[in-house]
Parts: sequence; C-alpha cells; structure tokens
Amino acid sequence: MQRIVEFESIERFDHRTGVLVCGFGGAGASAALEARRAGAAVMVLERFSGGGGSTMLSACEMYLGGNGGTRLQRELGIEDSSENFYNYLMACFGEYADEARVRAYVDGAAEHFDWVEGLGVPYKRGFFAGRDVVALTGDSLQYTGNERSFPFSQIATPVPRGHLPADSGHDGGKTLMSVLLKRVAESGTDIRHDARVNALLRDRGGRIRGVVARIDNRNVHILATQGVILATGGFIMNEEMTRRHIPEYASYCTRHGNPGDTGDGIQLGIAAGGHAINMGQAFVGVAHYPPAQLTCGIFVNEQGQRFINEDIYLSRLGHFASVQTNHRIFLFIDNEHFSRPDYHETTRIVAVGETVAEVEQEAGLPPGSLAQTVDYYNRHAASGEDPLFHKAREWLKPITTAPFALVDWSLDTLKPTCFTLGGLDTLPTGEVLTADRDVIPGLYAAGRTAAGIPRTAAGYASGMSVGDATFFGRMAGRQAAAHP
Amino acid sequence: MQRIVEFESIERFDHRTGVLVCGFGGAGASAALEARRAGAAVMVLERFSGGGGSTMLSACEMYLGGNGGTRLQRELGIEDSSENFYNYLMACFGEYADEARVRAYVDGAAEHFDWVEGLGVPYKRGFFAGRDVVALTGDSLQYTGNERSFPFSQIATPVPRGHLPADSGHDGGKTLMSVLLKRVAESGTDIRHDARVNALLRDRGGRIRGVVARIDNRNVHILATQGVILATGGFIMNEEMTRRHIPEYASYCTRHGNPGDTGDGIQLGIAAGGHAINMGQAFVGVAHYPPAQLTCGIFVNEQGQRFINEDIYLSRLGHFASVQTNHRIFLFIDNEHFSRPDYHETTRIVAVGETVAEVEQEAGLPPGSLAQTVDYYNRHAASGEDPLFHKAREWLKPITTAPFALVDWSLDTLKPTCFTLGGLDTLPTGEVLTADRDVIPGLYAAGRTAAGIPRTAAGYASGMSVGDATFFGRMAGRQAAAHP
Repeated sequence: MQRIVEFESIERFDHRTGVLVCGFGGAGASAALEARRAGAAVMVLERFSGGGGSTMLSACEMYLGGNGGTRLQRELGIEDSSENFYNYLMACFGEYADEARVRAYVDGAAEHFDWVEGLGVPYKRGFFAGRDVVALTGDSLQYTGNERSFPFSQIATPVPRGHLPADSGHDGGKTLMSVLLKRVAESGTDIRHDARVNALLRDRGGRIRGVVARIDNRNVHILATQGVILATGGFIMNEEMTRRHIPEYASYCTRHGNPGDTGDGIQLGIAAGGHAINMGQAFVGVAHYPPAQLTCGIFVNEQGQRFINEDIYLSRLGHFASVQTNHRIFLFIDNEHFSRPDYHETTRIVAVGETVAEVEQEAGLPPGSLAQTVDYYNRHAASGEDPLFHKAREWLKPITTAPFALVDWSLDTLKPTCFTLGGLDTLPTGEVLTADRDVIPGLYAAGRTAAGIPRTAAGYASGMSVGDATFFGRMAGRQAAAHP
Repeated sequence: MQRIVEFESIERFDHRTGVLVCGFGGAGASAALEARRAGAAVMVLERFSGGGGSTMLSACEMYLGGNGGTRLQRELGIEDSSENFYNYLMACFGEYADEARVRAYVDGAAEHFDWVEGLGVPYKRGFFAGRDVVALTGDSLQYTGNERSFPFSQIATPVPRGHLPADSGHDGGKTLMSVLLKRVAESGTDIRHDARVNALLRDRGGRIRGVVARIDNRNVHILATQGVILATGGFIMNEEMTRRHIPEYASYCTRHGNPGDTGDGIQLGIAAGGHAINMGQAFVGVAHYPPAQLTCGIFVNEQGQRFINEDIYLSRLGHFASVQTNHRIFLFIDNEHFSRPDYHETTRIVAVGETVAEVEQEAGLPPGSLAQTVDYYNRHAASGEDPLFHKAREWLKPITTAPFALVDWSLDTLKPTCFTLGGLDTLPTGEVLTADRDVIPGLYAAGRTAAGIPRTAAGYASGMSVGDATFFGRMAGRQAAAHP
C-alpha cells in the first residue's frame, strides 16, 4: 500500500483545512477541540460511522494529580504534590519512562481535570477506598494502581488518582465521549465519518502537507496547512503487527479495543520515517480482584513458588505471570476466601483437597513444592509478615481453612485482555520524531498511536491511557494550531 | 540529519556501481562477495579504516546443521536432520521466530559451511564435548546452546552445531574475516574505507537508487543501479536508541560490539519507511561457565528461590536473571565446586558460612528462604532429580561440602555483555519491508541491521549471529545482483 504520496504531484485538493485530525477517539477529539479553540480550521477524519474510539469502550478513568491535587482530590481532602506524583510515575516505569513526557503530564494533569469537568463531564465528590478495578459505588475518586503495594508504597506516599465520571461504573467512556464529541461538533470542526486516511502527502522538503483519504468510496486529497495529527489508536487488532511486536502476548491474549485499532496511524508514521518505540510492550490484564478477598490467596508458578505480592494492580500481575515458565500460574486459596473472580470466566479449578499435600498431588505440582511454599507463607502471615514479597498486612491471613483449592490462572487458559503500549516516538507536544530524534515537520501523534506515559504492564494503572490520550491529544492540537 | 535525499535532485554522481554494500563486517563482506560472484559491479563503503566489523571481534562460531549434517558434522560421525535442526530453532524462539527465515537457514546452512570452508577458513575435524562457551582445544565442533538442557532436550535430539575455525579459540573472527576480506578484495570489488553512508537516494517512484556518503571529508553521491545493502551492524553503541528500545538492559550492560554499531543502517532503513522489529530484545551474556563445575551450584533470586536449570546456555540465564526482582541473582555453591568464573571479574562474595543458615543470615536473604531452597534441592539431587527445573543429572550434586558461599551475580554489578537483536524487518532475501510488509524496492539489509534468526536471549546460542549474518548477507548479495 502506498502510504506516502508526493505532495507536488497533487493537482487539485478536494478539501482544505488548517489542522487535520485522523481518528475521533479520546485523543483525536481532544486534539480537534483544542486546535479549534486556538483558532485553527479543523477537520476530523473518522474511519467508522461514529466517533468514540477505544476511549468510548473504557470506564474512562483518568490518572490525574499533582500541583497539590486536582480539584476533585482537594475537595475530598486529599493532597497530591507534583513531586509525589512524579516519583510514583517514575517508579512505575523506571528506565522505560519518558521523563520529559512524565514531567509535562505531572505539571498539567490538575488543570486537565478542570478542562474535562469544564466540558460538562460530571464527577461526584466521593472517594471509594476499596480494592476494585472500577468503583461501582458512583464515587469519582479511587486507587487504581500499585500505590499501596510494595515497592511503590516505599517510594511515594500512596494517593488515589483514578478520576471516574460520576455514577458511570464501566460506562464512563460513554459519559466522556458523548460530551466531548458534542463539544467538538459545536466548535465548528468539520467532522467526516466513514473516512479512512490511507496516505500522507509529503512535500519535497519533507513536510507533511495533508492526506489521501477514502471517503464515500473514492480517494480524496486533503490539504492541511498547519499539520496532520495521527490519533487512530494502537495496533492490538492488527494480526501481522502483533505477531511481529508482541508475539507472546498475541499468542494468548484477548484483544482489547475497538476494531479500528489496526495501527493505521503508526504505519503511516513509520512510512514517513517516524520512529516506533516501545513496540514490544503491552498491557496484560489478569484481574484477580474483585472480589478483593482473592488477594488473600497466593499465586504460585509451575514450580509451586510464589513470584509476586498479590496486592498489586492487575496488569502488574499480568506482567509477572507472563515471565513465569510457560506463562502458567495458579491461585492457591482456602475455603474462607474462595470465590470466582468477577472478570474471568475461564479460570478452572485444578485441584481441591482437605490438605495442601492433597492439592499439590492432585495438581501434579513438584512433590513438596506447594506444601513448602504454603508453610512458609502461613508461618510469616500469622505474624503479619511477608518476607519474600511484602504483601500489605491487610491481606496477610494464614491459608488454613480447609478445603483448599488450586485455580488455574495460566495465561493460555485465562486469555487476559491486552492492548499495545508502543507507538511513534514524539515530543510531549505530539511532534513525531525520526530515529535521529529530528521532528518530522507537520506530523503529530497522540493517544496509542504514540508511545505515551504508560510503558509497561508492570507499572500501568487504570486511567493512564485515557488520561494520557486526552492530555497529549490537547497538547498536539495546540501545537499544530500554533503553526502559521 | 537528512537521511533521505531525492534522487532526481542529484545532478552528478561521483561514482556508479551495481550493488552498493554499506558496512564491511561479516554480513557486508559476504553480501559483496556473492554479488560480485553473481557478476554485479560491487562497491563497499566501510566507515572505519579497516573492515571486519563485530564479526571480527567474535570467536566466529557459526551455528550450522541440517540436511543430514554439515561436512564437518558428518565427518565427525554426527547426523543432523533438517527437521531436528528446524525443531530446535523453533523451540528456541517460539512465537518470536520468523518461520520463513528459519526455514531458509535450515535448508541452506550445510551448504553455507562448504562455502565458508571453500573460502579457505580452516576447520579441524575434532569434537569438543565439554561445557564451555568457546572450545579452547582447537577443535572445530562443539555444543554452544541449550541443546542438552530442559526443555530443549525433550523437543529435539541434542546435536552439536557450533562450528569454530580451527585452533582459533576466541580469535576465530580474525581467522574468518582475514580470509573473507581478502576474497572480496580479490574479487574486483571497489572497497572504500573511511566512507560513511549518511543518506539514501530515493526516486519519486519510491525506489532506493544510491546513497550520499562522506568520503575524504566531502559528500559523495553514489548511484547503485541494482540495490543498496545495509549491513552496518546493530545499535548497541547508540545511547539514544538503546535508551528507547532496551532501557533496562542499557542501564546495566556492557556494550558488546565494535564502535560502529550505532544503528546507522537501521536509522537509514527507518527513514526510508522500513519497519524495525524485535527492537526490545537483546543478548545478555551471564557466563556462569567456564569452569563447568559452577553448573553444580544453584542460582537463587532475592527471595532465595531458584528460577532456572543451571545447565542452560549463558544468555538464557541472562534472560531469566533479567526478569527477577531488581535483576538480582546469586550463586549458592559449596567448597567442592567453588571457583571464580572465567568470564566475569565483578562477581562478589556476599557471604560465606559453615551452614546454609549462616550464609542466608549474613546475606540478608529472607529468613529460612535459602535454607528451604537448598534443603529441597539437595534432597532431590541426592536421587538425581530436579523436580522444579530439570537440570540434567550430570550436574545434580547435593551441595553439602562446607564452607558454603553466596556469590552476587546481580546484573547491576555483573554488567553482562549485551548486543541488540532487533532490526529491519526483511524477507529471507534481505529485501527490506514496510509495516505493511511491502518491499521497499532497491533496499536490502543483513546482519544485525536486520532482525535475524536469533530473536531472544532466552533461545540464543553462540554462532547464531555470525551464522545468520554471513548466510543472509550472501542471500542479500545474490538477490540484489539479480536485479537487472
């Protein structure tokens, strides 16, 4: 497929705009609105018949804080310094973190909350303190990551930063996007649906000057005098790309996103000489809660050994599960805490017994391995300690109430949800970079078309995708609109 | 930096050739020689004042077999079916494997040995059966990977495939390259040293037609009528690229290769719209042998737990070390088997004691953790079993001869050698692919500028880099020369 067309070869343009946004999900809509508010003529091309993207499918948590706290945090009596927020994010992603991007996000996240609320998205002044992926109480603030678990709790003061539209539960994405799409429509942006961008127009000087799109079954040439913003999502729905970049995840995952997450924007950016980075990383959702009581069980691998503190966020469990032998892990739990997990229907009880030894034998684990692990765990849990992995005291209860069960949470059978965390290397302004880190003039990316704040499953928290997509979508919109 | 220059803008060419090879290491020299033998006019540009590349720095093992066995294998009475060879390679790389590439390699590897030997590289008909990284006996055949260890030994019949120039020890690269460079020089290839390629010439139709190079301190335009082959090595010496693609490895590794491994060819390929894949993978060399007796120790992590069968190849240990908490691992060993490792000077004895408990306490491991691990290991080793990780019986000896030592092999302190395993996506012919898997006409890549046979440290074996680089260098040379 010809992804780059010579600008000078185009004799006639079907449309002309200032800022052209490709993709009408959270990132694209935020980019369009900000560019429009900055005074640019804006056109949006959306591949499907309606906007919303993968943001619409999400619960729309946004991971926000800093500057003393967002308005929501502060009104709930929660303080969040920028330093604490920064330290937490840097601990989450370590060497993978893009420091400049993290800094920009920390500096602007509190204002970003005001922007979102100012659109008309409702937030309820209620704090849910429990352990759940999405608060179902209607409250708008909750913990969504590893803040309260080791080692993060030792590095940064735990602060809840998950901001959730009021009373929306899992449907927060609809709450946000219905408002955001409306604001874009009201802003005078030219929105085209059923319009897929197929190629970028590049002039001989190397500047991106527009696109070739397929609209109404014909090729349309669109001139963009200020810039083209790629915001078409990630590539989790692209078989070929996932096989190349995240082959292990691709072999067992449930692909999570909308059908348009086929990497169009990333492919266009690559064709233009853009540098795709972090392409081997993905979110892997192994939701071992709710119910929270499952956190009192222990996860073991094929060797019958523990490998993680079980009070961590779901994708951190996913990451550590993915590096165990054959991606196989099992939950060992007693009758007092046993329950089926809310989010997975494919867990299978491997063995049940009145003693640990019975379970171990029935499951075919190495002889004595599980018994030894449980014995060690129980001995220390009785005194509120977890010398191996430092699970928080709240979840440390000796596993002693027979019968006991071993439940298969292996990734091959669990088929956890995955989405991609790699994309085009960009400046915080959204400007797309080459492998030399030179800017490609006229080209921007945001949302999962770019490599964003979240860079590994090990450090991910709910709210980092939508927070990043909308925040850096706005940055890209403003930057493109500033071009004369 | 301007990496792509419009072909049509060039008014005068300083040189003209058929096949232009960038880089004069193992891949580039092989490509040049094959292209020349196929009748093409060939020019080589080498950045440094002499050829050899990273191949010259290696021991020049080549991982070869199949078709019943190479001439060397057969003359040593060793049979190696293509199916067995294929099964082994596929087991090594699993979902990461490029099946078409593996197939082409397996089909051609035995002939490749004849080609190399035909150049004049000496091979000694001797088989070294011991456990060492590079045979120092002068023999030319040895095991170099995970063939004899679990789970590989269960999947494919163990066969030695490491082919080493005779009597060369660690200097096999010099043996090979001195001959290969000579053959290229004799072939009538136009070789230019101190010549660095900075940009590709692309015509309006998208074909690569030549390069802009820096020779004798001036920009030179070179027309290549048949094709440009990028063979400039990997990117382990590029700070910025390693920080983006292998940030964890980059934080602790010793960069292994020649100073020219700065990713020039990969950057040029990306600028041309090429798709870089597998960029997050690297070789991590944690050489826990020789001496082989160290294999009788056990490696434990911060939790005092084992995590691997210790009889594996060095980079498989590196891979599993890299996914342990804080990349920290320790060798526990008794007085009978203790020795300093030949390849690492930075290991540090953390604790010594007359009992396991003493060592555990002195090292600050979680109380009882190491004692439990050693007890379990010893109990089963006594009967020749390793129920957790299936280390081969040969290395299973109860660790009982006091005093005992715990030696720090953590990656931060060990600083293992690393080199990159990612590069441009290519067909087995070397043709560079876009993210849509379309061929970029006129552009080829080989060696570590391309993503090759070895795709993960977990499945790597010595000989897979030089084997791949020279083999697929030849393929690229032939393919480019076939262009009219």
